[in-house]
Amino acid sequence: MVYDVISILDFSRNEIMQLFDLTDKIRQILPKRRKIPILSGYTAALAFFEPSTRTRLSFELACKKLGMDTLTIIGESAISLMKGERFSDTIRMLDSYSDLILIRHPADGASRFAAEVAESPVINCGDGAHEHPTQALIDLYTIHKFKGNINNLTIGILGDVRFARTVVSLLRGLTLFDPKKVYIISPPFLHLRDVYRDELKKRGLNFEEKDSLLDVLPELDVLYVVRIQKERFPDPSDYEKVKGSYMVTHKIIKEYAKDDLIILHPLPRVEELALDIDNTKYAKYFDQAKFGIYVRIALITLIFGVQDKIS
Amino acid sequence: MVYDVISILDFSRNEIMQLFDLTDKIRQILPKRRKIPILSGYTAALAFFEPSTRTRLSFELACKKLGMDTLTIIGESAISLMKGERFSDTIRMLDSYSDLILIRHPADGASRFAAEVAESPVINCGDGAHEHPTQALIDLYTIHKFKGNINNLTIGILGDVRFARTVVSLLRGLTLFDPKKVYIISPPFLHLRDVYRDELKKRGLNFEEKDSLLDVLPELDVLYVVRIQKERFPDPSDYEKVKGSYMVTHKIIKEYAKDDLIILHPLPRVEELALDIDNTKYAKYFDQAKFGIYVRIALITLIFGVQDKIS
Amino acid sequence: MVYDVISILDFSRNEIMQLFDLTDKIRQILPKRRKIPILSGYTAALAFFEPSTRTRLSFELACKKLGMDTLTIIGESAISLMKGERFSDTIRMLDSYSDLILIRHPADGASRFAAEVAESPVINCGDGAHEHPTQALIDLYTIHKFKGNINNLTIGILGDVRFARTVVSLLRGLTLFDPKKVYIISPPFLHLRDVYRDELKKRGLNFEEKDSLLDVLPELDVLYVVRIQKERFPDPSDYEKVKGSYMVTHKIIKEYAKDDLIILHPLPRVEELALDIDNTKYAKYFDQAKFGIYVRIALITLIFGVQDKIS
Repeated sequence: MVYDVISILDFSRNEIMQLFDLTDKIRQILPKRRKIPILSGYTAALAFFEPSTRTRLSFELACKKLGMDTLTIIGESAISLMKGERFSDTIRMLDSYSDLILIRHPADGASRFAAEVAESPVINCGDGAHEHPTQALIDLYTIHKFKGNINNLTIGILGDVRFARTVVSLLRGLTLFDPKKVYIISPPFLHLRDVYRDELKKRGLNFEEKDSLLDVLPELDVLYVVRIQKERFPDPSDYEKVKGSYMVTHKIIKEYAKDDLIILHPLPRVEELALDIDNTKYAKYFDQAKFGIYVRIALITLIFGVQDKIS
Repeated sequence: MVYDVISILDFSRNEIMQLFDLTDKIRQILPKRRKIPILSGYTAALAFFEPSTRTRLSFELACKKLGMDTLTIIGESAISLMKGERFSDTIRMLDSYSDLILIRHPADGASRFAAEVAESPVINCGDGAHEHPTQALIDLYTIHKFKGNINNLTIGILGDVRFARTVVSLLRGLTLFDPKKVYIISPPFLHLRDVYRDELKKRGLNFEEKDSLLDVLPELDVLYVVRIQKERFPDPSDYEKVKGSYMVTHKIIKEYAKDDLIILHPLPRVEELALDIDNTKYAKYFDQAKFGIYVRIALITLIFGVQDKIS
Repeated sequence: MVYDVISILDFSRNEIMQLFDLTDKIRQILPKRRKIPILSGYTAALAFFEPSTRTRLSFELACKKLGMDTLTIIGESAISLMKGERFSDTIRMLDSYSDLILIRHPADGASRFAAEVAESPVINCGDGAHEHPTQALIDLYTIHKFKGNINNLTIGILGDVRFARTVVSLLRGLTLFDPKKVYIISPPFLHLRDVYRDELKKRGLNFEEKDSLLDVLPELDVLYVVRIQKERFPDPSDYEKVKGSYMVTHKIIKEYAKDDLIILHPLPRVEELALDIDNTKYAKYFDQAKFGIYVRIALITLIFGVQDKIS
């Protein structure tokens, strides 16, 4: 099984399916037992050099549910820590204090570098515009749960696919499966980077890039939405002109989508996903958020090879 | 018993007395046992969107004494979390991660709104200039312990009664009892807001507003002091002119107060309460601070209905 | 044994040797057991009024390994807490919430003052340019482990000895032993303060101040390096001129140092200690960092007098 988790491509399809089976088991057990302290006495270091709340709290909770102690450095204090200190020294310190390092960092590749320095396993919790592999595991698990499958589906990915690391991880993750078709729908300026387009082609993913959601909405089994930040546009007025084409509302879903479409979002959302979807059958993003805890507990369990202690 | 604790008026007098009985029991037991882990496996989320140290640490400790795990978001990181995200989404996230939400927020009504969104119980730890109900529970408990009663007392409340949410909660709390008389003593610009004056009248509280402490000091059984921040004055020099009339010193207490007067303060204090009172028999604010932990443990115990597990 | 730990001089040589014996025992036991929860139910308050990551996390971990709960206030939120509030009130609050207070503060003497106010024991985790006694315990332990002794050694201390509190604590700590010779090597503007020079003479330490490392390097058994921050220089270009004389590189160590020289550093380092030393036999600073946890666990154990519970 995996040791460091830097990219979703650190997993094979089989390993992901094994993770999903364990996640199912934990979802059954945890609500009754409240804790599964099979890693009690172990310590996890959460090093969040970039602000994050969802991912940080979700991992902290996962660790605590397994009985681990946690040490946290966040935001400003994390950055002031770095003043003048070499990143490798910081990682070495965390390594000597803990048995697992959870790292978020604004620089692409920071997690990979940390994993090279540290003896303890490292989990990438988001590094620059590179990857956020555990979010992709959660996304894939959610699709798998609600559709019974990841293969043979038509999946739309909508939003800022240029800078969203969750999109990179999800697209790479989909190359491990056999989706029928993947549509990548994004506004101008926010198209997929060339390097990833080339990689996905090489990996044989059947995908197509689109400018407008409505063109493909009727075909979709899954619609995965990510944030569009207007600050990404060279001129914010450009954003105002196009945003209508990338906003998911109950109205267009009811009118154009398949009856069993499911909508996912890694959250937080801004304008791109309307509130009026929340209470519809399509909305699965709150389930997806809840699954996050279980997937992360399962992942840590597998990294430490203690899955047999869960019974 | 209560579920969400948003206002002190969520309690009946009977419920408050039941809480006080349980607080007494916990005060006896906890120092010997050090922990009462009847909620082990449960998680509390502390969401402090406004800086706070006393209330935050006191609640965190109360949770840990009950065996709960805690997740914390504070200050800047809490605020950056909010950037663009809907508050309801933030609360939904916390709700899915925890069994109890403790929230402080700069906006009046934020706790009420959170309680409407969340399935888990929500405790208001201070919302804008609205309420701070658990502080009022601590205040009332302290009065009850040192005076054997809350009824039939003459109580003075001194300081910024316009913006202090602890004052709103305490005054409302007093309407559930039968104090003999309540004097509300405040500088100009910092008088009680009309809406609360009207409400207290309607609730039948026997109160009177005063400009100077000395007018009523000889009558008081309890003197409750809150901070006066000079920034509240339109012109800070106005503060310098009047501050003498609202400063509690050992000299005036010795000269004018009843022998068994007790002085409370929710802390932190600035200039309004002189250091020379600290070691006198009148000073009960450090006891009050210590009682805080026990009252909060009792409250959480009652919210989860596990009081019978304490024996 | 000690109660408050404000200065390294709060210890006798015997007490330090007792601490080292216990540290040895904990180093043997902890890796197998992962926790030694002999202080479970106790609470430690970590009050870091100045940013720190190494010391804070190391103490937090030490407390958790002993089964303690921890409450933390750090950086900005710690400072905003202080706005207007008397420091003694803040300490009294922490005292009522916890059984042990760990304090870092930008002002010399803040820890001593806290210890006078608090009933719980207080450990100084660095106060201004005054002392950092637990770092000195770690430094001495590391020397003792690798050299079998602290007496009869020639020890060089290199860097900013004017502002580094770790240096004050280490030098004072060395007066409790009988080193053969101590060389204090520092750039202009960063020489030892007169008050400490006088004190060390009075205490009978055999020391000499030097301008350049190379003059004494061949004699040294131990080289203790601390950071040189160029901001300390009245004119930063002065730093550029001299920095070469205070930089420890593999080249000069290989050429001039004894074969069994050990190099220590409290970390974080900046430029004064080259990366190319890291993988040599001389480098003991990562061991030193790891020892920190064990020394601190031993210290807390002794403060609470529970050393007999470790078996």
